[in-house]
Amino acid sequence: MAETHEILKALNWRYATKQFDTSKKLSDGQVSFLKETLRLSASSFGFQPWKFLFITDSELRKRLRTKAFNQTQVEEASHLIVLCRQEKLTSADVDKLISATSSATGAPEDSLAGFKNVLSGFVSGLSQEKAEVWCEKQVYIALGSLLTAAARAGIDACPMEGFERPGFDEVLGLEKKGLRSVVLCTVGIRSEGDKYATRAKVRYPLADVVETI
Amino acid sequence: MAETHEILKALNWRYATKQFDTSKKLSDGQVSFLKETLRLSASSFGFQPWKFLFITDSELRKRLRTKAFNQTQVEEASHLIVLCRQEKLTSADVDKLISATSSATGAPEDSLAGFKNVLSGFVSGLSQEKAEVWCEKQVYIALGSLLTAAARAGIDACPMEGFERPGFDEVLGLEKKGLRSVVLCTVGIRSEGDKYATRAKVRYPLADVVETI
Repeated sequence: MAETHEILKALNWRYATKQFDTSKKLSDGQVSFLKETLRLSASSFGFQPWKFLFITDSELRKRLRTKAFNQTQVEEASHLIVLCRQEKLTSADVDKLISATSSATGAPEDSLAGFKNVLSGFVSGLSQEKAEVWCEKQVYIALGSLLTAAARAGIDACPMEGFERPGFDEVLGLEKKGLRSVVLCTVGIRSEGDKYATRAKVRYPLADVVETI
Repeated sequence: MAETHEILKALNWRYATKQFDTSKKLSDGQVSFLKETLRLSASSFGFQPWKFLFITDSELRKRLRTKAFNQTQVEEASHLIVLCRQEKLTSADVDKLISATSSATGAPEDSLAGFKNVLSGFVSGLSQEKAEVWCEKQVYIALGSLLTAAARAGIDACPMEGFERPGFDEVLGLEKKGLRSVVLCTVGIRSEGDKYATRAKVRYPLADVVETI
């Protein structure tokens, strides 16, 4: 079958899993795959202003569930991923990216001066508030990539905005790490009893959401 | 080869394509695939507060290029996708989603009153500014999904934040449509001459961006 067909089949198969099978854990290989998918995600300028926390500690997940309107997935999914953004975007981040670019590509840092100027101008032109929004959007690219990659690999997921961000930040000690929680994604294997698994997907028709000009 | 391996290979294969092969167009099947991928994207509450414009008109693309720092991809890629958000989020959007949910699932609208209350509370609790940011984040989920699906299907892409949003909105008449441009994605086939295609990917090591707790 053509790969495009396989991907669309996977996107139709996926749904925001409400009930995970608590007896089934993702394999180490599956978890590594999800981590690498996140690591490879695109971001504007390649800035990667993020960190992805995979929470497995059951006591911690019990506490976090109380900060997420008691939603069962937070505790019962195989893994809870907390997608975080950096608290701030500074010239140190520019230096880090330039250094990494030089290392990866072999280009001397001097030859990257033009790119560095663009990055520096971008960062210094952002207010703290705009920087936060910008970083969060980048995190959402990673989320979108994760959902599609997971679906294609037969891994269930539930993206979740419904949680107390300050509560998560506090429980996870994110301030000290220079991070802030942005969005959650629980991953694992759906329960056979999850009635939402067989509910028809609700999407507007193509004519409503796509226009060719 | 395991599917997880294929996906990671695709994510390593993709890059922000700077130079497209102007002699190669995506097939109708490939374009339909990209449209359907966007249509099926996840969004919070399933709200789908977006529209995706596929721009093929060459005169229009020439004009849009002048609003995108003259970047060649805007004109030369097989297709230019302008990912847009709704200008506003209102009770009419809640009604539309409830109606679509009822149609798709067969659940009477009455039985969706609880869901409707949640949606209505969410929408009425958002300031215009917060609604805009929220809608844009949803669009970024679709972007992330698009990039990963395209890569896995061997389609090149370049996501682009570098353009004048008001300029695009004006040229495309988006105000009249109740839309605003958010981010671009040019898609097509990479040129053999694009030196960025073989440049090493710059990603921070796993230990920098992933933590297991």
